[in-house]
Amino acid sequence: MTAERIELSYRIAASDANQAAETARRIAYEQSVELPDDVLTDIIRNSILGRVLEVKPADTDSPKQDDASAFFDARISFSTGFLSQEWELSQFLNLLFGNISLFRGVQLTGVEWDALPVDMLPGPAFGCSGVRAHHGITTQRALSCTALKPVGLSADDLARHCYHFALGGIDIIKDDHGLADQASAPFDARLEKCVAAIQRAADETGRASAYYPNITADGEETLHRYEMAAEAGAGGVLMSPQLTGLSMLRRLRNHEAKLPIMAHPAFSGAYVQPGYGFTPELYYGELWRGLGADFIIYPNAGGRFSFSREACQRINESCRKPIRDWAGCFPTPGGGVQRESLPGLLEDYGPDTVFLIGGSLYQHPAGITEGSREFAEMLVSDEF
Amino acid sequence: MTAERIELSYRIAASDANQAAETARRIAYEQSVELPDDVLTDIIRNSILGRVLEVKPADTDSPKQDDASAFFDARISFSTGFLSQEWELSQFLNLLFGNISLFRGVQLTGVEWDALPVDMLPGPAFGCSGVRAHHGITTQRALSCTALKPVGLSADDLARHCYHFALGGIDIIKDDHGLADQASAPFDARLEKCVAAIQRAADETGRASAYYPNITADGEETLHRYEMAAEAGAGGVLMSPQLTGLSMLRRLRNHEAKLPIMAHPAFSGAYVQPGYGFTPELYYGELWRGLGADFIIYPNAGGRFSFSREACQRINESCRKPIRDWAGCFPTPGGGVQRESLPGLLEDYGPDTVFLIGGSLYQHPAGITEGSREFAEMLVSDEF
Repeated sequence: MTAERIELSYRIAASDANQAAETARRIAYEQSVELPDDVLTDIIRNSILGRVLEVKPADTDSPKQDDASAFFDARISFSTGFLSQEWELSQFLNLLFGNISLFRGVQLTGVEWDALPVDMLPGPAFGCSGVRAHHGITTQRALSCTALKPVGLSADDLARHCYHFALGGIDIIKDDHGLADQASAPFDARLEKCVAAIQRAADETGRASAYYPNITADGEETLHRYEMAAEAGAGGVLMSPQLTGLSMLRRLRNHEAKLPIMAHPAFSGAYVQPGYGFTPELYYGELWRGLGADFIIYPNAGGRFSFSREACQRINESCRKPIRDWAGCFPTPGGGVQRESLPGLLEDYGPDTVFLIGGSLYQHPAGITEGSREFAEMLVSDEF
Repeated sequence: MTAERIELSYRIAASDANQAAETARRIAYEQSVELPDDVLTDIIRNSILGRVLEVKPADTDSPKQDDASAFFDARISFSTGFLSQEWELSQFLNLLFGNISLFRGVQLTGVEWDALPVDMLPGPAFGCSGVRAHHGITTQRALSCTALKPVGLSADDLARHCYHFALGGIDIIKDDHGLADQASAPFDARLEKCVAAIQRAADETGRASAYYPNITADGEETLHRYEMAAEAGAGGVLMSPQLTGLSMLRRLRNHEAKLPIMAHPAFSGAYVQPGYGFTPELYYGELWRGLGADFIIYPNAGGRFSFSREACQRINESCRKPIRDWAGCFPTPGGGVQRESLPGLLEDYGPDTVFLIGGSLYQHPAGITEGSREFAEMLVSDEF
């Protein structure tokens, strides 16, 4: 069942209420008819044209930008007749932020998901509980994750790292998102050797880690690598939705060769700039989750990027909060996770979290395996 | 022949030279090894790791942002071994602006295209002279373009608009980028009726306009609509690279069913924000042209968006300037083009320009055909 209209919410930077109302009006026209009012027929004006439902001062202390002195919240409804018959994502993204991507000071803060057909945004195929079951993790603990690096190593060298991480008990060992199909470590060789390394470690420890190769590629090749990963016995896959195109995420989610999907934010930062684009919690925790991501990697506070701890918590919440019948997915904070900071993060972020830790395991004075063991044991001992 | 390294140029917002140097260093690490220096082997450090070649104060009067008090220009070189063996665009975009999309105050200003293999970025299949030949335009004049709108009209109503524009002598009549495959005017019906409308007008006037349907869709469906457009006799196609994924632009460009490609900036504004992402001239005039766009639509100064006249001129120049053996493509400014402003624009922008004019033709007191005739004649009379 699809509603006739869908409501979208925006945060608008403006000098005063009049300017905010004018911006809301411009959004309504720009994102629907793209014509001056005087040439619209009554039928078009009453059906397709966006409708400004409300513009009010925002309750926020966000820093002001440019010549804007205040923020306003607007709600605008659009006809679902604006969307394609087949519910194409391209046209949906166009409705959300097509031409207004060329505006400044406009940020999408909410989407009325219930107005859309269920098939359009199916949510994660696994979700948190599905991933736990898939990997045989029977307790409600947080998961450990690390990345094979750097680009330039051979498939053998990367597989050796993989083996050492697995010996240390890391739950998920993913490729660095920069590992594609370089001559130094071609995708197929890397896949085969890393899966074998995981198995070798499991034979020794009796406990299996999962390897997630990066399948990000152009067009159908992403799908092909997904199938290769499933056939080879990988535990899941890593992909960067903004590099493959967002519709590929949903295609993988609906593919019969089911593997959990970890989504990486490479190239996506443009859509979550301060006061512009989408709020990070809407983009990652709602849109990407709705498309089928089982894990959302995001740059953790205190790391190399600029998200605040509060912003991270909002992403965490949006990954798990009830939306339609979507399964909750794992927020996967990367960066800023150290031995010292982990206990506090565990307490704040909770057990439905995957902690991605990279550099500091490579730097561990006792080596990768020992560093990994320390990290993994901290999560296991902190079972909730 | 591919070079061993590729040089990228950045504009960095920073408080002082030391901070700028530190940001350049962070970019070099983040976009290559993503590891702290102390765990790199000499081989990796000397091969894959990005190399900061230069950081110097920028010669610019751009407005300052946040707490940055100055701009700096940096040049960093990366190993082409970081790219995939098949020269995948996904991995190339990842190198250009993957993780650093999550930074702030970093803008890519230049790419050393010559370092890349020719097939990777083939440039336009038609270019300006190819488009003129394809459409039988024998003089070196600027071209006229308009858009069929709004979404919500039936295919018959849109075809009627198309007929009236064609009677008035508009060179290229494209779909609004919001026309996808809505129930109100499905793609196949719209294509058939608009091509027929063009033909009907041509039978009357003896001069054929070209219809460019919007083929933007998810995945392979874009390709399918491209083929349908070619079979039906469309003059070219419209597509939004940021909605299809950028690699689709190159696939269309290399497709055997050759039609000129007009690229629309929907959803792309996030990558050309002030002081962030890419300069518009690099993104549109170089990257999109390199991928195969024959026309680059951009928001003209004085219209509904925020590009300055100088920024528009920089895009115009980048569409035409010599880069490798790429054909020059048509800058296609949309918005802000009126009867009164056209002579000045013609003089400034020159004959290798397509002027996209929408709303004001619909508003013309004497009707669409008369408004179109006036517009088209101004371009023809101004032949250079």
